[in-house]
Amino acid sequence: MKLSILFGGASYEHEISIVSAITVKGKLDSFDLSYIFCDQDHTFYNIPEDKMKAKVFSSGEYKKLPILELNRDGFTQKKFFGSKSIDGIVLNLIHGGDGEDGSIAALLDFYSINFIGPRKEASVFSFDKEYTKWLASSLAVKTLQYAVVTRDDNKELAYPCIIKPACLGSSIGVSIVKSEDELEYALDVAFEFDSRVVVEPFIENVKEYNLAGCLTKKGMQFSIVEEPNKEEFLDFDKKYMDFSRSEQVLKADISDELVQKMRDTFEKIYRGHFEGALIRCDFFVINNTVYLNEINPIPGSMANYLFEDFELLISDLASSLPRLKRPSVNYQYIHNISKAKGK
Amino acid sequence: MKLSILFGGASYEHEISIVSAITVKGKLDSFDLSYIFCDQDHTFYNIPEDKMKAKVFSSGEYKKLPILELNRDGFTQKKFFGSKSIDGIVLNLIHGGDGEDGSIAALLDFYSINFIGPRKEASVFSFDKEYTKWLASSLAVKTLQYAVVTRDDNKELAYPCIIKPACLGSSIGVSIVKSEDELEYALDVAFEFDSRVVVEPFIENVKEYNLAGCLTKKGMQFSIVEEPNKEEFLDFDKKYMDFSRSEQVLKADISDELVQKMRDTFEKIYRGHFEGALIRCDFFVINNTVYLNEINPIPGSMANYLFEDFELLISDLASSLPRLKRPSVNYQYIHNISKAKGK
Repeated sequence: MKLSILFGGASYEHEISIVSAITVKGKLDSFDLSYIFCDQDHTFYNIPEDKMKAKVFSSGEYKKLPILELNRDGFTQKKFFGSKSIDGIVLNLIHGGDGEDGSIAALLDFYSINFIGPRKEASVFSFDKEYTKWLASSLAVKTLQYAVVTRDDNKELAYPCIIKPACLGSSIGVSIVKSEDELEYALDVAFEFDSRVVVEPFIENVKEYNLAGCLTKKGMQFSIVEEPNKEEFLDFDKKYMDFSRSEQVLKADISDELVQKMRDTFEKIYRGHFEGALIRCDFFVINNTVYLNEINPIPGSMANYLFEDFELLISDLASSLPRLKRPSVNYQYIHNISKAKGK
Repeated sequence: MKLSILFGGASYEHEISIVSAITVKGKLDSFDLSYIFCDQDHTFYNIPEDKMKAKVFSSGEYKKLPILELNRDGFTQKKFFGSKSIDGIVLNLIHGGDGEDGSIAALLDFYSINFIGPRKEASVFSFDKEYTKWLASSLAVKTLQYAVVTRDDNKELAYPCIIKPACLGSSIGVSIVKSEDELEYALDVAFEFDSRVVVEPFIENVKEYNLAGCLTKKGMQFSIVEEPNKEEFLDFDKKYMDFSRSEQVLKADISDELVQKMRDTFEKIYRGHFEGALIRCDFFVINNTVYLNEINPIPGSMANYLFEDFELLISDLASSLPRLKRPSVNYQYIHNISKAKGK
């Protein structure tokens, strides 16, 4: 099966997307893979397999590699005579901005390119932590209480709390604030990245679990539930390393009943929104109740380490992608009006 | 000032976008205008001014006109030697799908093309009537009660009610249902267009008002408030004619206090979401309370008929567009890790 890994992007998570792509490359041996790199200027490059090394990108060496145009023929490389398109399904592995905010989804859909990844609307809801709350609330999925704070607000907050820019992943700009005198600095950091920040209570030693999955023709496919290793919370460096994970992990030591609760919550979030994507939901469990913390619609290295047979899963998902229905235009109204005018 | 009117799109409102573009053309005499047509296959064409006639599109004659590529250089026409880009700001006048669902916004933003029109996130919220409710609710803006119904639902509804596909404008697929025996047919019609329908109470003779506006460097700019001519509600044929309006209308005979209430509600919706767009909000007024009915982020013919000096407004808006901040990538983490590995 032909599959093109699309990675990079003009995003704070550009580098971890590169790491993710290199990791996923090693997990999809049976696929006929291509690699499409999107640089920070939104130029696409066709990367040969032997150039899939972090240094090719950090050194700028990639700029000597063939440029790809994106148009109705897909990702297309100009040749001396004519041009050649990269066939097959695209795996959107651009983390953060571009990839997870709905831009790449809109581009691929616009040019009728089949892809694995969240669609535009689902991306808008998962990328913004406030909008995720709205989505969850409409589905009766519990989340922690929250407040949204902008620069001019003067909100009374309770401590300890956790402060997150509304629209960033990978812990960028996130701080735990234990008392009011730590607040200003934490807000300054967060406002570097977004004009809105989401504030939630910080619950020490809260149980945290990750569950990944997707819908295929075989039905909902779930990963094992992992209890992530955590210190207070993962900072960017640690998360960065996290994106290169490729060893399967042990499943969390929790009851079948709790696993089922998480699966049910996952499915509520997924259906009707995330079809076509392999997502990871991060949950909190408090008094045996499941709370949605975050939706990762393009999890680091596609959460390969949570699945027993990752290749089979990607292959099943690739053959279960939603197709856009496009209205056909017949110019009925213009014809009628022209007739009525006698023209 | 150079301005390119982008119109057409793979949308149920393709034809009214053509009508809208022809109307707006007649209202922007002092601009240096270009015309970019997006056909239903997502090919872009450069339309000379003398070809801006409905029949050029309905007859397929447009297919003989020059094709435009969209890439980092903007909309670009290949010439015998080299290529030429269309400069200036784009006015997104694609109604319905593509234009109002965030796809075109994503494309233009991706290629750093400055444009008048709603951004991706704002589009997702205004295009879907359920999501509009979520947005309004988060801003303490009142809307009518509603239920969301899918094909498998068996919801108890109260009559009379109005049934709308979640994601279409221009009254397509909308029905008023006066009793249960009319329900099935109305739902069948609506489900032709979307898998979710929004049901609201139908309030006979409810007062309806339209207000358009935008944020420019001069502050919030509002149109007059219009009380639209309505029969039970506008069907598609009438709305179609509505998109060709170019005569300024009379303002509604209502109190200054009510106008102010609508402006306040408009501003709540607009700020933080619709910057860069000229939008029209359609309100209901019940017992002197303002309810948001719909947000039209690309109103028919840009609601030119509601403004005293439409050209000045567009010129002000064009010089007040939001700019995307793009993160710069410095490969700090890859460099650090390479160093740590001694490579």
